[in-house]
Amino acid sequence: MHFAVIARIVGILLMVFSATMLIPAIISLLAADGAVMAFLIAFVLCFGCGGIVWLFVRRARSELNIRDGFLVVALFWTVLGCFGSLPFLLAEGLHLPLSDAVFESISGLTTTGATVITGLDELPVSILFYRQFLQWLGGIGIIVIAVAILPILGIGGMQLYRAETPGPVKDSKLTPRITGTAKALFLIYLYLTIACTAAYWLAGMSGFDALCHAFSTVAIGGFSTHDASLGYFDNSMILIIASVFMLLAGINFGVHFFAWRSRRFYHYLRDSETRFYLFAVLVSCVVIVSFLAYTKTYTVQESVLLGVFHTISIATTTGFAAADFAVWPAFVPVMLILLSFMGGCGGSTAGGMKVVRVMLITKQGIRELKQLIHPHAIIPLKVGNKRVDAKTVSAVWSFFAVYMFSFLLILLALMASNMDYTTAFSATSATLNNLGPGLGDVSAHYGDVSRSAKWVLCYAMLLGRLEIFTLLVLFTPAFWKH
Amino acid sequence: MHFAVIARIVGILLMVFSATMLIPAIISLLAADGAVMAFLIAFVLCFGCGGIVWLFVRRARSELNIRDGFLVVALFWTVLGCFGSLPFLLAEGLHLPLSDAVFESISGLTTTGATVITGLDELPVSILFYRQFLQWLGGIGIIVIAVAILPILGIGGMQLYRAETPGPVKDSKLTPRITGTAKALFLIYLYLTIACTAAYWLAGMSGFDALCHAFSTVAIGGFSTHDASLGYFDNSMILIIASVFMLLAGINFGVHFFAWRSRRFYHYLRDSETRFYLFAVLVSCVVIVSFLAYTKTYTVQESVLLGVFHTISIATTTGFAAADFAVWPAFVPVMLILLSFMGGCGGSTAGGMKVVRVMLITKQGIRELKQLIHPHAIIPLKVGNKRVDAKTVSAVWSFFAVYMFSFLLILLALMASNMDYTTAFSATSATLNNLGPGLGDVSAHYGDVSRSAKWVLCYAMLLGRLEIFTLLVLFTPAFWKH
Ligand SMILES: [K+]
Ligand SMILES: [K+]
Repeated sequence: MHFAVIARIVGILLMVFSATMLIPAIISLLAADGAVMAFLIAFVLCFGCGGIVWLFVRRARSELNIRDGFLVVALFWTVLGCFGSLPFLLAEGLHLPLSDAVFESISGLTTTGATVITGLDELPVSILFYRQFLQWLGGIGIIVIAVAILPILGIGGMQLYRAETPGPVKDSKLTPRITGTAKALFLIYLYLTIACTAAYWLAGMSGFDALCHAFSTVAIGGFSTHDASLGYFDNSMILIIASVFMLLAGINFGVHFFAWRSRRFYHYLRDSETRFYLFAVLVSCVVIVSFLAYTKTYTVQESVLLGVFHTISIATTTGFAAADFAVWPAFVPVMLILLSFMGGCGGSTAGGMKVVRVMLITKQGIRELKQLIHPHAIIPLKVGNKRVDAKTVSAVWSFFAVYMFSFLLILLALMASNMDYTTAFSATSATLNNLGPGLGDVSAHYGDVSRSAKWVLCYAMLLGRLEIFTLLVLFTPAFWKH
Repeated sequence: MHFAVIARIVGILLMVFSATMLIPAIISLLAADGAVMAFLIAFVLCFGCGGIVWLFVRRARSELNIRDGFLVVALFWTVLGCFGSLPFLLAEGLHLPLSDAVFESISGLTTTGATVITGLDELPVSILFYRQFLQWLGGIGIIVIAVAILPILGIGGMQLYRAETPGPVKDSKLTPRITGTAKALFLIYLYLTIACTAAYWLAGMSGFDALCHAFSTVAIGGFSTHDASLGYFDNSMILIIASVFMLLAGINFGVHFFAWRSRRFYHYLRDSETRFYLFAVLVSCVVIVSFLAYTKTYTVQESVLLGVFHTISIATTTGFAAADFAVWPAFVPVMLILLSFMGGCGGSTAGGMKVVRVMLITKQGIRELKQLIHPHAIIPLKVGNKRVDAKTVSAVWSFFAVYMFSFLLILLALMASNMDYTTAFSATSATLNNLGPGLGDVSAHYGDVSRSAKWVLCYAMLLGRLEIFTLLVLFTPAFWKH
């Protein structure tokens, strides 16, 4: 383990991250909302701590190995998650307790979008901006890590994207060095955000709301600047725009990269994961809309609009709401929450287990049925036109099992803290899948949850965002032995 | 497909099964409980239908292939499940509607033990006996099929028991022909039943209750002759006896066979599945007992007795109750129901996914963590001292995924029929795992569930008992093509 180099990276990261505090500080100054000192103190603390660490190890240089990679990725979210909580702790009239401040910060950075704050509409605008901006940063963080680093670490079968890049990507490698890749992905992310901001603004949002919600949409975060989320605007066009951009943000940014570079739209449809994703969302929309219309929860027209919007919002793990879906016939919220276990594509900002894994598991299930009927046949497992090697398949399976197991442990921990079943089930799903809103006591916000439960949920958000294994591997003795 | 031979087997099976009706008929005659005609008519119908089928195809002879095997196994439970419902349809003063009669019959034969009947204490004794006897028959049916047939079909990794029989079994094959195996297993099953009857009787049950509950215990069924289940007797010794025999019945009968034949107790502990099973039950007992005592739900002494009893009852998927555990702090029933997903060992009468599969998945998860740290190492997956081949592992994974997927589909189907979440979740678990009692509206019985939901639950019980794939494979076009 190269601790000095890792410390150097974390130090630099903190110093860069401290710049994040300056933008809301400026906004606070302009709006005179009284939060400027909170952001300046947070800036000094972040920059100072990062700088001190950096000073001590600034000369450290060596190649990082795979184990260092795990530690860097895990530290990215835990360290930034902790330092990101400073403005919530310090801001006048907010002064969240530690558990709440860390929860809000981790929820933003992991793009979960579960909030402990109520009365958003009365909050200082700088704090509102900061919350949305945290998600946006977390979003580009996970894209770069998922596209450029996780395939190298080989977590949960993500080597799929390395050795066996599916469909159109196969002939042309992503810019090989991580920095080059990161730059390309960042530009796509930026363009998407600009387009989304413009669309929201044209549909009638204020410039501030448009930018804030674009951050939230493209990052699949789900934080809003209003307690009523997107329902506040009461505007069908905004729901349609949100649906389109959530759907786009749920696609692998590597696929975006190749489709945009070659300017060929069909690249999307040639990628088997994207096809599976769009098909699954389509089928779910049809089921949910039909159910809403059939049970006369809404008129047919409203069922289509609200059904499609909420299906995309929850299936991609964004978590925006335009109506209180927790009070719809129980089938709908439960089916939606189950959908969030799949989430979006790998290499996107979405949470959940990722489409590519669910697709592989489905294919393997069908393959197994065929194998039972023809026990001596050799039936290969393919993604796109490429055969998937046994190691990758077994990594995906293990991911699935460990995901389920983590889910159960967190569920039981919450229930042991005396949470009721619906709340515990939905809170576990909503945090582990980086979804955000739940049902029961957490359908609107997480403010009323006990302090110990909040820490458990913070852990669940990190576990989900770090694809379980990145965090879990740190708890094994073998990781720390040489 | 050799339809004629399959029809001949089913015909013979029905004629043999019709004898089942004669024992309760005799009991009814002796007790003068008025149900004798129901059983005689059921006997005639079973024997007649079986006989007619047999007459047409009695000369059919040929070797069965694997696909025939699937069909025979699936028909065993579906055909007997339907014909077994006759006494419930016909009996005076009972006259269950078709959905209820089939539900009760399938519930018995699959050893689920979920009942739609209330007022058991007032029922004709012959009907009570028949319900318990159905479970006992279903129990020996699943043991023979699981030990002798499923390994040949290779369902969900059960080839483990064929190619790589773990631990002590490896050097000595089970009597190779199915009839020989069946006889040996039946004898063990019979001895266990006799011992259990004697123990219950000595502890204070009537001879009738002792026999009926021994049927239910050894078959991991869970039907009782009283609405209050084992709680009726208010006798700690009975709970202890039940715990011991449930625990024994949850062990692979192949392991019982070798341990008893060689009269070496340590054979049990040399089998890695049995070790894992006993360890998991022990840990769960400690957690549940501690929780009950800590929350002051009971005194420490009562917590130990009731905690251990219910943990074993639900973990082995028996489903006996001695208290209304649905009203305990929610953590306990939820943890117990989650335990039932593991169930007992393969080749036992227990339901659930089976210990051997959960053990393999756990080992694979740990292996994957090691693989992440040492990406180039070749880490074999072992059960006992034997390496598990890739085909078996992939079969187990597929089983796990398809099990989860079936669970979700059944859950959504129940919720679409307007069932509340707790009831739907627990009813799905309780039927798919062949457990029996649930929570919410199905904590005591399934009588109040809608008719359509009852059919869905019948399907779930069959799906669980047939290890999912045996039933699922019949729905694939490839199965029916040559
Ligand atoms: K989210
Ligand atoms: K049972």
